[in-house]
Amino acid sequence: MSIPALRWLDPPAGPAIELLDQTRLPAVETVLRCADVPSLLGAIRRLAVRGAPLLGIAGAYGVALAAARGEDVRAAAGAIAAARPTAVNLGWGAGRALAAYERAAAAEDPMVQQDAPAAALREARAIADADEKACAQMAALGLDLVPAGARILTHCNTGSLVTAGEGTAFGLVLAAHRAGLLQMLWVDETRPLLQGSRLTAYEAGRAGVPHRVLADSAAASLMAAGQVDLVVVGADRIAADGSVANKVGTYGLAVLARHHNVPFVVVAPVSTIDFGTADGESIVIEQRPADEVTHLAGHAVAAAGSSAHNPAFDVTPPALISAIVTETMVIQPVTTGNLRVLDTGS
Amino acid sequence: MSIPALRWLDPPAGPAIELLDQTRLPAVETVLRCADVPSLLGAIRRLAVRGAPLLGIAGAYGVALAAARGEDVRAAAGAIAAARPTAVNLGWGAGRALAAYERAAAAEDPMVQQDAPAAALREARAIADADEKACAQMAALGLDLVPAGARILTHCNTGSLVTAGEGTAFGLVLAAHRAGLLQMLWVDETRPLLQGSRLTAYEAGRAGVPHRVLADSAAASLMAAGQVDLVVVGADRIAADGSVANKVGTYGLAVLARHHNVPFVVVAPVSTIDFGTADGESIVIEQRPADEVTHLAGHAVAAAGSSAHNPAFDVTPPALISAIVTETMVIQPVTTGNLRVLDTGS
Repeated sequence: MSIPALRWLDPPAGPAIELLDQTRLPAVETVLRCADVPSLLGAIRRLAVRGAPLLGIAGAYGVALAAARGEDVRAAAGAIAAARPTAVNLGWGAGRALAAYERAAAAEDPMVQQDAPAAALREARAIADADEKACAQMAALGLDLVPAGARILTHCNTGSLVTAGEGTAFGLVLAAHRAGLLQMLWVDETRPLLQGSRLTAYEAGRAGVPHRVLADSAAASLMAAGQVDLVVVGADRIAADGSVANKVGTYGLAVLARHHNVPFVVVAPVSTIDFGTADGESIVIEQRPADEVTHLAGHAVAAAGSSAHNPAFDVTPPALISAIVTETMVIQPVTTGNLRVLDTGS
Repeated sequence: MSIPALRWLDPPAGPAIELLDQTRLPAVETVLRCADVPSLLGAIRRLAVRGAPLLGIAGAYGVALAAARGEDVRAAAGAIAAARPTAVNLGWGAGRALAAYERAAAAEDPMVQQDAPAAALREARAIADADEKACAQMAALGLDLVPAGARILTHCNTGSLVTAGEGTAFGLVLAAHRAGLLQMLWVDETRPLLQGSRLTAYEAGRAGVPHRVLADSAAASLMAAGQVDLVVVGADRIAADGSVANKVGTYGLAVLARHHNVPFVVVAPVSTIDFGTADGESIVIEQRPADEVTHLAGHAVAAAGSSAHNPAFDVTPPALISAIVTETMVIQPVTTGNLRVLDTGS
């Protein structure tokens, strides 16, 4: 993408956050300028900005924006954290920027106090920088799990549109491609919003990665035919027991992968792990509007009057996950104990 | 549907076959008039007419059409049988009409010889009549497999649009609804051509069946949540060992159903069983054009230049199938031996 997924604008153009509108990609590249928190919340809710790591960055910048505008920073952080119920990174990023702001605001030195909005912005920038590094580290660590000649299947979109770097699962795919290990990337189209066929296929094409799109329901027979060596996906929230909430369809792929003895690998930064959520059953799953299923680009694709069941995510239990690749280590097998070493209490 | 899915026209309007164009339903009801075999073949290939039982009927009427036009009936039957590689009913229906034609044509009585085209047409009508009865019988026999308060999940479209009666799997759903056994019909949208959200949801709505559409990839978490009591699907070809070729995505559902201990039932007339095909590996799977995945109603839904893997069907092994409901008996468990009793050698 020539336009970055997210950009902070200083005065005089800002303070504002510019977002590449992901709902219209790749057909149309539109930049949304969010000059206040409500417009950012709207963009988050309608998925103009999406993807776990980028939501963390957007959440932090949102707090910086409230601070720069002299608004109630704590209220802004709360609203951002609640904008989408499943995405834990939102609250994590907003919380980090809020903490940086409040540390500065509570200082005895009036210069430091005045600098509190800048402290929130510095924290948002630090989160973005760290995410870029984390992408590279996850890709390097995950490469050990990729066999030569790998045919990798992925779901949804996990590349440079949703991180400050090259991506989580897609970052690993790119690393495998550069290392000469990748034979084929199978791209689940990822209904209902087609993040696979719209975004992942676009990023794969630009990077020269050999790839083919498929209907989500065609993955099963591809595995039965021995055409998939590895499934690699991202995560929107990981519970303390290793249960992974990710784009709807991920859980089904995990069941299919197990049935066909195909390794199933999750690539996600430590910020995605929510140690405050004990297990998969405790993860709240966001229900999205029916018209995401019944309509496409404004056209009805279902019989008139149809109602739809449209969960945004599903939960994959740890027993079905071969490994979770983070920026500091590969968790394998996925157990509460193995994950706990990553809990820094932050 | 107020317009029948298929209708034969006698002279002077015919001889011709009128088809309801299923590619444009339910938004637009267009009737295609096929006055010769090539136009029928085109309609079959682009799925204007589709579904295993209806293809059998269309195949028989196609032979009757060639006969009425005084054309090479054997060549027509061969072309019809080969129009789509996986759908066995096409060749079965064409073969039955051809046999009726050739029996009459080989008769010593010149009156019977002259009557050969009418014999082919009578056979086509007999196939349609038998299919209507078979639907009712399958629904009655299958009802024993439906628990009270059933939440049934189905895939693709198997109702009155694809049979001369109320359908195969959908016929059973209707019977369960009338018997007061049905709590909910979950309708897989069935990508890429959305036969579920377009056609099954339409038929369910008209019949007053409580239903909700879902993205195919949402079926897994629905099963995990205990919201599915039974999966019911049709079949495009059943091999002698009980392997079932059906709309792509069926096999994945069968794996998921087994993982969640949900019964998986196939409803199909005996004409769908191909005793000449030994097993699942011997079934040729039709590969469809990539643009069925990358485009929708003429609009690009994938990144420009994306290629796609687009098999029309997949194969479910008998070990994953709880029962096959035919018009004469319920095959349970699904084994070569249990199926063989249905082989009349016809």
